[in-house]
Amino acid sequence: MAFEIKHKDACGRIGRITTKTGVLETPILLPVVNPFATRGLPPRILETEFGCEAIITNAYLLWRHSRDQAVRSDVHKQIDFSKSIMTDSGAYQLLLYGDVEVTPNEILSFQEDIGSDIAVILDVPTGGHEKTERAKFTVDETIRRAHEWENAKRREDVLWVGPVQGGTYLDLVEYSAKEMAKMNFSIHAIGSPTQIMESYRYDKLVDLIATAKINLPIERPVHLFGAGHPSMFSLAVALGCDMFDSASYVLYAKDDRYMTSFGTRRLHELKEKVCICPACEKFSMKEMTSLPNDERFNLIAKHNLYLCLNEIRVIKQAIYEGRLWELVEVRARTHPQLLEGVKKLRHYRRYLEKYSPVIKPHAIFYSSPESLLRPEVTRHLMKLNTTPVPAPAEILVILPEPQKRPFSKTKEQRKYRKILRGVFHDHDLRKVHICTVSKFFGLIPMELDETYPLAQHEVPRTMDLESKKLISQTIRAYIKNHKYSAAVIHFDHRVIGHESVKRIMESCNELGVYVLVTPKERLNPRSKQALEEFRIALTEVYETTAKPSGTIRPS
Amino acid sequence: MAFEIKHKDACGRIGRITTKTGVLETPILLPVVNPFATRGLPPRILETEFGCEAIITNAYLLWRHSRDQAVRSDVHKQIDFSKSIMTDSGAYQLLLYGDVEVTPNEILSFQEDIGSDIAVILDVPTGGHEKTERAKFTVDETIRRAHEWENAKRREDVLWVGPVQGGTYLDLVEYSAKEMAKMNFSIHAIGSPTQIMESYRYDKLVDLIATAKINLPIERPVHLFGAGHPSMFSLAVALGCDMFDSASYVLYAKDDRYMTSFGTRRLHELKEKVCICPACEKFSMKEMTSLPNDERFNLIAKHNLYLCLNEIRVIKQAIYEGRLWELVEVRARTHPQLLEGVKKLRHYRRYLEKYSPVIKPHAIFYSSPESLLRPEVTRHLMKLNTTPVPAPAEILVILPEPQKRPFSKTKEQRKYRKILRGVFHDHDLRKVHICTVSKFFGLIPMELDETYPLAQHEVPRTMDLESKKLISQTIRAYIKNHKYSAAVIHFDHRVIGHESVKRIMESCNELGVYVLVTPKERLNPRSKQALEEFRIALTEVYETTAKPSGTIRPS
Repeated sequence: MAFEIKHKDACGRIGRITTKTGVLETPILLPVVNPFATRGLPPRILETEFGCEAIITNAYLLWRHSRDQAVRSDVHKQIDFSKSIMTDSGAYQLLLYGDVEVTPNEILSFQEDIGSDIAVILDVPTGGHEKTERAKFTVDETIRRAHEWENAKRREDVLWVGPVQGGTYLDLVEYSAKEMAKMNFSIHAIGSPTQIMESYRYDKLVDLIATAKINLPIERPVHLFGAGHPSMFSLAVALGCDMFDSASYVLYAKDDRYMTSFGTRRLHELKEKVCICPACEKFSMKEMTSLPNDERFNLIAKHNLYLCLNEIRVIKQAIYEGRLWELVEVRARTHPQLLEGVKKLRHYRRYLEKYSPVIKPHAIFYSSPESLLRPEVTRHLMKLNTTPVPAPAEILVILPEPQKRPFSKTKEQRKYRKILRGVFHDHDLRKVHICTVSKFFGLIPMELDETYPLAQHEVPRTMDLESKKLISQTIRAYIKNHKYSAAVIHFDHRVIGHESVKRIMESCNELGVYVLVTPKERLNPRSKQALEEFRIALTEVYETTAKPSGTIRPS
Repeated sequence: MAFEIKHKDACGRIGRITTKTGVLETPILLPVVNPFATRGLPPRILETEFGCEAIITNAYLLWRHSRDQAVRSDVHKQIDFSKSIMTDSGAYQLLLYGDVEVTPNEILSFQEDIGSDIAVILDVPTGGHEKTERAKFTVDETIRRAHEWENAKRREDVLWVGPVQGGTYLDLVEYSAKEMAKMNFSIHAIGSPTQIMESYRYDKLVDLIATAKINLPIERPVHLFGAGHPSMFSLAVALGCDMFDSASYVLYAKDDRYMTSFGTRRLHELKEKVCICPACEKFSMKEMTSLPNDERFNLIAKHNLYLCLNEIRVIKQAIYEGRLWELVEVRARTHPQLLEGVKKLRHYRRYLEKYSPVIKPHAIFYSSPESLLRPEVTRHLMKLNTTPVPAPAEILVILPEPQKRPFSKTKEQRKYRKILRGVFHDHDLRKVHICTVSKFFGLIPMELDETYPLAQHEVPRTMDLESKKLISQTIRAYIKNHKYSAAVIHFDHRVIGHESVKRIMESCNELGVYVLVTPKERLNPRSKQALEEFRIALTEVYETTAKPSGTIRPS
C-alpha cells in the first residue's frame, strides 16, 4: 500500500490510506466497536450519523463468541458497517488477562477469513510498569511473531499492522521499531500507551511516540493505540501519529463523563450547557442530567464522539493552515501534565524540524515559551550557525528589534542605516553586517530578513524570559561561529539584560573580537542620546578597522 | 435596582439583573438588532431558537425612522421581541458621523416612551485617536449630560446606563468613572473600545477596562460596548465586565467571516468543517460555501452567534468551577496581541486579588508564565510579607519542592524533618521555621502548607524561567521582611540557579543573617551526599545558635 501524504505541518500530515473497502483520510479516529457490549453506539449510526469512514473492532472477541458466523458472513455484514474495518487481535486482552485462547497464527488467519481491511498481528504489549526482562521479552516475542506472520499471511489486500513495543524503555522501543521497520508492514502501531496516559505522563508518551517514529519508515502511517482524549490528539499528530482508536467516548459515557474543550467533567458538575453539538442541542442541562440511564449514556457517548471527531477536523484544518503548532500550544493548557508533554518536545527538535515544511501559507504566532521549540526556530538556529558571513563583511552590527516586520523596511532601521552610512564610506559599508535581535528567532541577519517566516511572524510586545535567554545565547553562539573582527551591539536593556551584555562581551574578548555596546545605562535605544552613542561607537570601530596595518586592536 | 452577585472568580461574576420585563443572568451577551437592516437574524429567532433573554437595539434609529409607531406600540412589539430590550442612544452614530439629529433630552424621553428596559444616555464617545482636548471635551460633556439626565428622567422602572469615556487617556477614564459613579445609574458602560480592538491593542483595552472598573462602584454591573469576538470575552469578564453587545455576528457574516475557537476565517479558507453547531450541522463544507448569498449569510450569522453564546456559557461554567483564569490563559493563545492583553494584567494584580474568592472548589493549574499573575499568587505573596515568623522560630530552613502536595506529607520532606530532629533537640526544634520553594507561589511556609490553594495546585515538572525568577525574588524579599538570625537553604540547582544563590547569600550577608547553602555543586538535593551536607549545615547553625552568648556570628 502506498500512503499518500497530501499536506504536512510539523511532523503531522494529511494523508490517504487505501483499503480494499475504501479510502481513509488521515489523521483519522476509529471509534472502537465492541460487537458484544450491551451498551454502545451501533456501527450503522457511526456510519450514517457520524460519517465514520472506518471503525476498529476486536477480532479476538469475534473469534471467541461467534467464530463460524464471522467467517461465513464477513465482518462488515456481521457488525453492520460497510466502510473500512480494522480489527485488533486480542493483544489488549493479553495485557488485561495475561493470556488469550488463540495462537498468533489462528487469529492471523481468522482476520483474513472475516475480511478485515486493516489487521494487527497478535503482539505482546509491554504495558506500563514491567521489569526490564519482561519488557525485553514482549519486544522479542512481538518481533518473532512478526517474522512468523511474514510466512503465514495469505491475502495481499489486507493492510497489516506491525506494532512497536517497549513501553517506557526507550532503548527497547528503538530496537523494536527498527526490527519491525525491516518487515513489509503497511502500517505501524505504537503499543501500550494506555497506562502511561492513565497516569497523565504525557512527557513519557512524547518520548515513546518520538522514539518509535524516529526509527520507523516515515512513509508508513502510524497508529497510536488507546489514545482517546481529544486534548492530546494534536500533540500526537504533531509528532507524526496518523491513526487513533478510541473506546473512551463510550467508556467515559458509562461513568457520566462528559468531554469538554477544557477537560472532562461528570455531567452533574456542569451547571451550564457548554456544547452545541447535535446530541446536546435538544436538551437543557437539567433535562440532560435527569434523562434515564440508557438515554443519558447514549447522549454522552454521542456528544463525546462528536467532540473527538470535530477535534480531528480542527487538527486537519490547522495542518492545511500551517498552524498545528499553535493548536498544540493551546491544547497544552488543558492540564499541566499535558503542558509537560509539550515541553518535552525540546528533546525532539531535530526530528520535528526534519519533516516540517519550509514554507507555510500563514504568519506564525508566538504564544508561549513553547513557541521557541517550533521547527521554524530550530531550523533558523541551525542555519545561523552554518551560513557564512556575506563577504567581505567583518564588522557585526546588532540592532534592537522593531515592532514591525520585515525589520529592514521599518523607519527605525532606516535611521540606524543612515547613521551607518554617515560613518562608513560607500566602499567600507560592505564591511558591515547588520543583524537584528528577535524575540522569536534570537538573531536575524539582514540578508534573511525578508524570508519566511522571519518576515511573517507575530509576537507580543512583552517577552517571556525564555526569549531573553534565547537572544543572549544566540548572539554568543553566532559570534563564536563566525569570524568577525569587531562588533557594535546597540541594545534595548529590557530585552538584553545587564548580565547578558556582560557575558556577550566576555565571549567577544575571549575570541579577540573588538566589541562596543551601546547605549550606556538604561536608555531607550531609539532616543537621541542613544543614537549618538551608536554613531560614536561605529566611528571608533571604523577608525580602528581602517588603520593602515589592517589589524584590529582587542579591547 | 439591586445587582445580585451569585458567584465570583477573579473579578468576574455571575449575577442577576432584574429589568421591568425579566431577569438577566450575567455575564450576558446582547445581540445587536438593527430593525431597519436588510439582513440580520429576526429578533423572534433570537428569542426562540437562541433563547436570548435580552437584545440591544438602537433608539436613535427608531427615533429617526419610525418615531410615532415606536411610541404607539412599545419597542417590544415593534421589533417583535418579548424579553428585555436595551436601547442605545445614538452615541455610536455620533462617533461615526460626528453629529446626530436629536438632543440628549429628546432621546432620553423617547427611550422612556417606547418602554426600553435598559436605556443609555446620549453620551459623547471619545473614540480611539483623539487629541487630549477633544478627549477631555467628550468626558466633560458626557458628565454634563449625565447631570441633565438626573433631572430629566421620569420613569423609575427603566435601568439607566452611565457610560464612562476617556478612551486611551487613563487619567480621563479615571475622572470619568469617578464622576459617573456619583450619580444614581443602575449600570455603567465602558465606551469607545471599538477602535482599540480594531487595532488589536488588547493591552490598551485592559488598561481601559481596569481603570474604569477600579473607579466604579463594584456592586453595579458594567457593560462593555462593542466587544464582539468570543476570544476576548473571558478576559473582559475576568476584569469585571458583566454585559456585552455584539453586532459582529452579523457584520462578520456579511463578509463571509466565520468565527472559530482559533480565530476568524473567511468561509472559503476552511477546508474542514470545524463546527458542530445546529446551523452547520446540516451542511458539508462544500455545501456551505456554495449556498446562495442570503442563505450563506444566514448560516454564518447563526453559527457566529451560537459560538458567541456558547463562549458565554463556557465562561459561566468556568466561574462556577473557579477556573476562569485558566480559560483566560487558553484564549490568550488565539493571538499574540490578546496574549499581550493578558500579560498587561500584571499592572492590575492588586485589583484582581481584591475581589477574587479565597476558596474555590478546584485545584488551580499552572499553564503559562501568565499563571503567576493569578490573584491567588498575588494574595499569597502579600500574605508572605505580612505574616510574622511563628515564635520562637529564628532559623529559616528552605527545602526544595517535592512533586506532590501538601509538601509536608511527602516522604521527601519527612526525610528532611528526620535529619532536623536528629540535629536539634526537642525544645530547640521550635527555633526552626521550615519553608518550601514553590514554582507557583515562590515560597510556602510550613504552617500554610495545607491551606488552599497551596495544597491544591498542579504544576508541570519543567518550569518556566518566570517561576525561577519568582522563587529567587520571593526568597530574598522574605528574608528581608522577617527577622531570622540564620538560614539553611537546601536547594535544587535546576530550580535556583547559581546567580540566584549568590544574590540570596548577598542579601543575607547585608542583613546579618548567617546563611548556609547546600548541597554544593550540582547534586540532586535528595542524594545521600546532599542530605549529609544538609545535616552538617544544620549542625553548624545549631551549634552557632546554641552558643552561651546567644549571638549569631555572621558568615
